[in-house]
Amino acid sequence: MRVSDGEVILVSGLPGAPDRERVRAAAPGAQVEFVDRLGERPDLLARAVVVAGSPGPEDLVRAGALEWVHSWAAGVDAALEGGLADHPAVLTSSVGNGAVPLAEHALLLMLMLDRDAPRWARAQREHRWDRFTHGELKGRTLGIIGLGNSGLDLAAKAQAFHMRVVGLRRRADLPAPGVDRVYAARDLHALLAESDFVVVTAPFTPATAGLIGDAEFAAMKDTAHIVSLSRGGIIDDDALLRALTGGRIAGAGLDAHGVEPLPHDSPFWDLPNVVVTPHNGATTEATRRRGVDIFVDNLERRTRGLALSNIVDKSAGY
Amino acid sequence: MRVSDGEVILVSGLPGAPDRERVRAAAPGAQVEFVDRLGERPDLLARAVVVAGSPGPEDLVRAGALEWVHSWAAGVDAALEGGLADHPAVLTSSVGNGAVPLAEHALLLMLMLDRDAPRWARAQREHRWDRFTHGELKGRTLGIIGLGNSGLDLAAKAQAFHMRVVGLRRRADLPAPGVDRVYAARDLHALLAESDFVVVTAPFTPATAGLIGDAEFAAMKDTAHIVSLSRGGIIDDDALLRALTGGRIAGAGLDAHGVEPLPHDSPFWDLPNVVVTPHNGATTEATRRRGVDIFVDNLERRTRGLALSNIVDKSAGY
Repeated sequence: MRVSDGEVILVSGLPGAPDRERVRAAAPGAQVEFVDRLGERPDLLARAVVVAGSPGPEDLVRAGALEWVHSWAAGVDAALEGGLADHPAVLTSSVGNGAVPLAEHALLLMLMLDRDAPRWARAQREHRWDRFTHGELKGRTLGIIGLGNSGLDLAAKAQAFHMRVVGLRRRADLPAPGVDRVYAARDLHALLAESDFVVVTAPFTPATAGLIGDAEFAAMKDTAHIVSLSRGGIIDDDALLRALTGGRIAGAGLDAHGVEPLPHDSPFWDLPNVVVTPHNGATTEATRRRGVDIFVDNLERRTRGLALSNIVDKSAGY
Repeated sequence: MRVSDGEVILVSGLPGAPDRERVRAAAPGAQVEFVDRLGERPDLLARAVVVAGSPGPEDLVRAGALEWVHSWAAGVDAALEGGLADHPAVLTSSVGNGAVPLAEHALLLMLMLDRDAPRWARAQREHRWDRFTHGELKGRTLGIIGLGNSGLDLAAKAQAFHMRVVGLRRRADLPAPGVDRVYAARDLHALLAESDFVVVTAPFTPATAGLIGDAEFAAMKDTAHIVSLSRGGIIDDDALLRALTGGRIAGAGLDAHGVEPLPHDSPFWDLPNVVVTPHNGATTEATRRRGVDIFVDNLERRTRGLALSNIVDKSAGY
């Protein structure tokens, strides 16, 4: 697959002029067009060989020349469900663009939970000097479910916090620097049983949907905290609510939720042992820039006839 | 200085039976006595060769046989001002016992400030999905004022957060692993000018009192945050208030305050760009245990005729 003169590259979700210039420069000879929504220019969509954005089922029907779709998201569960799973086009993702800030968010939530930061926030609002004994991360065990980019960056950070790190990955044979012990998927309960903090960084796939349910919360320590970072639906929210209200676990930090936006009447907002953030852990300017970097790099690879990076394994779901 | 049979060791502030047993076992032959306040047994104080706790001026007048005082605190500014600066007894501190949890607290405050965690907390209270772009620590510069135990542990953590780390120490010639550049005290303004986060971990001494005032806030970036960890009074609170309300700096995380407890009418409680915690960063069970470890280790050293560790340099103030 190489660029041809005049072929259409249709890009949505990229409003900034400097970014657009970078994309144009990476595909000399191509007709690069920018739109707010892919569907607003059916004529271009019909001729587009490359699309960047989130084409829906009706877009894919129109896009008869499509060879490659780039997703601005790191997780492509929605893209695959939207029709790309069965489409012949190559799918690339922005996976890795938010890995580091997501690992930062994990540490923020772990520290807030371990130190009961919401209690300090209440005291600050009320001008009260409320001093109490809290935990420290040193010496505790962190269990990471999903040793991808964010999971491995989190492991390195947790080592600097003097934690023991265990992790679970589909391919337990791959190297995992910073992880003291790698568990295969079948050993999930062993990982849960020894972890003081469980952080979910796995992609949402048929293999991870509902992975953490009642039996898994029962396997955890009742002093443990869970952090949901990557995608809702990996944790069963009903089971999580039972675990939190029944004292089965100590607390949760929730950035990814089963339903988003989290409904106004969700019970999670008001639980004293829960910190809620709005799927916002990786929302930084650098994350956006790294997403553009990935697409531009791939356009250049394509122009030079090289293999694309960040290609999604559609059967694995990431 | 070696232990003699029957000499009095007077210990305050150690209510737990297991801790008391450890202390007794470390000083065989001595008469080890435990009290709530040192002044409650003048007869023992008069004969005490070793005291653990915080003797005041009137205690020191009574303690005619005193050779060694151990402070349960890491910072000994109050102990020195209380009469020990001019007393011939050796002073040891618990410095190092809270270094790791204090560095954890620094990262908590840095992440809360960089990500505007208080905004998420407000949204959670109001059940609002408030998603916004925030910062990430990667690529930013951390300036650490005081490269002692907590400063160096913080430096290692910040490296795992992919930050550039600069630090200031009185003895700039000492090794500083994890610090990209060490500044001497006279170069304070250069450190401040390049730092996105400034964390104060120095002890309170005549050399650090009021170290950060109007001129220093003027030297900082207006996007920078400051974190006060070790002792109030190193930062001039009036100058800090001017810097925060005047947009001279972006925000502050305050665990150590000029007046403690922070008065109910302090303006710092209500500033939107300030996170207040009640001198609580290192208050963990492990910190307490490590403080006992230091005293017990020193008692054993004394019993065996070895030099004590953690001896305070009274002229330096730490």
